[in-house]
Amino acid sequence: MNTPEPKAASDHFSMQIRVYYEDTDFGGVVYYANYLKYMERARTEFLRTLGFDQSRLMAQERRQFVVKSAAVEFVSPARFDDLLLVTAEIIKVRRASLHFLQQCSIANDANAADANESNKTAGDLVASAEVVIACLDADSFKPCAVPGSLQTVLNP
Amino acid sequence: MNTPEPKAASDHFSMQIRVYYEDTDFGGVVYYANYLKYMERARTEFLRTLGFDQSRLMAQERRQFVVKSAAVEFVSPARFDDLLLVTAEIIKVRRASLHFLQQCSIANDANAADANESNKTAGDLVASAEVVIACLDADSFKPCAVPGSLQTVLNP
Amino acid sequence: MNTPEPKAASDHFSMQIRVYYEDTDFGGVVYYANYLKYMERARTEFLRTLGFDQSRLMAQERRQFVVKSAAVEFVSPARFDDLLLVTAEIIKVRRASLHFLQQCSIANDANAADANESNKTAGDLVASAEVVIACLDADSFKPCAVPGSLQTVLNP
Amino acid sequence: MNTPEPKAASDHFSMQIRVYYEDTDFGGVVYYANYLKYMERARTEFLRTLGFDQSRLMAQERRQFVVKSAAVEFVSPARFDDLLLVTAEIIKVRRASLHFLQQCSIANDANAADANESNKTAGDLVASAEVVIACLDADSFKPCAVPGSLQTVLNP
Repeated sequence: MNTPEPKAASDHFSMQIRVYYEDTDFGGVVYYANYLKYMERARTEFLRTLGFDQSRLMAQERRQFVVKSAAVEFVSPARFDDLLLVTAEIIKVRRASLHFLQQCSIANDANAADANESNKTAGDLVASAEVVIACLDADSFKPCAVPGSLQTVLNP
Repeated sequence: MNTPEPKAASDHFSMQIRVYYEDTDFGGVVYYANYLKYMERARTEFLRTLGFDQSRLMAQERRQFVVKSAAVEFVSPARFDDLLLVTAEIIKVRRASLHFLQQCSIANDANAADANESNKTAGDLVASAEVVIACLDADSFKPCAVPGSLQTVLNP
Repeated sequence: MNTPEPKAASDHFSMQIRVYYEDTDFGGVVYYANYLKYMERARTEFLRTLGFDQSRLMAQERRQFVVKSAAVEFVSPARFDDLLLVTAEIIKVRRASLHFLQQCSIANDANAADANESNKTAGDLVASAEVVIACLDADSFKPCAVPGSLQTVLNP
Repeated sequence: MNTPEPKAASDHFSMQIRVYYEDTDFGGVVYYANYLKYMERARTEFLRTLGFDQSRLMAQERRQFVVKSAAVEFVSPARFDDLLLVTAEIIKVRRASLHFLQQCSIANDANAADANESNKTAGDLVASAEVVIACLDADSFKPCAVPGSLQTVLNP
């Protein structure tokens, strides 16, 4: 089982996520809200590769990121055992918010069985979203500035 | 503990949903993707009050509803133990899709403790969304017509 | 849709919980870990009926309940749209822990469609568990005494 | 970000799992039921390394694995951003069931920030469980034999 390294530039990131039992519903496909979990994992790992640690931000600076809005298109359902490529691209940096474009698509899966029911090929789009993240004071929940170190990385 | 009856007209529905441990995250509030679960529960109960049984639809007609798109605004976070009022209003009926407007807001809660941290008052908006549901063939996942009986109820 | 009042004595509680899409997996039944969510909801509502508010406990006394162990038997799978009766019975009260016996079974459902696939009858056992809850200091995560007011209610 | 290969022998497997926002609750730690999700992911990947594909089993042979019982000890809470090592060991192979011993512990995390609140060191046990899996006919939900090919791998 070969898990390639996630790839990141300063404004783009992607990682592979496997669909497990927990992610599916009785319709046989991924439950729609769970794509938002996948996208949040990709944003978290993206921020980590930029040297940006949300645990430390919360503990030391009492700041946290929350989702302000998400506009999601569910294009084609993923199924149990599908391997997805989940991307996160920062398309706008504001004083107190970050705008992401994100996609889930079918990844190249060396382990995929022929019997897999999904009839999908690598690259097929599963879901896409525009997600706006706001930086909040973790106690008052009031908006506050995106940390300067992150601004610097994103707007060099 | 007084659980009022859900209320429905032919195009509008609301129900109360309690926020439990499982719904929250370590930021102290409801995890953003979970509002989509609440909204889906309200759509399910709405369809049930219209005499429309999704289990039977799936078993007998091999048709199911899936979410095609969701545009969600996360306005103000709900917390553990908050009682929410979740609404579902049908704003458009198409041949193969239904368009819903949905809101989560703080409900009147006779049991709310004074010590509740949320500082919210009944009626405060928590989240709102436009959700488009498509009717699919449960085997081919191809679009198919919304059942006539439901069309009749919604477009009398 | 008739939602009966939850019923509680000082050591026993039950409530009805509907199975939604979010709870199922592609096997067509409730995902096994989700029964633990149902059981936790029942414990929360049970404590509420005893006048015991976990939000206030956390905010004012910095104490919280956490699960120390759970031994669960998954007897017969519940399906989408099933209405469950979830019980919580306190079988042991210790200085710093509470022992619960909990069951999920099929509830009487006036709305159940004939076409429902589950072939279950009211009373059929779905899952049962013994769950041990410990009272912790919310900051240090060290064990501390179950609040005296709760001890009094449970050991009159 | 260095994701080591999962390791498997014919009766033992381990993989790393990162704790994301979705996994935590407002107590600041992983929601207890979510450890069961982690353990199920490890069982799935373990079976995959043994050449055993659950998608194909379901599609071609209409057999599936379900959890019959789980006895879980929650030893010490994991937190947001913790990296866990999740193991699965087969301790008993029966005609129609498999018995697993599973553990979640803190993994070596090269990326862990000093500011991480968890005060944990690699190897600390988080949760452990004995999980019994039954092989079922996917249509009747009646017990059936564990596939012979898997029996052969496990009892060489």
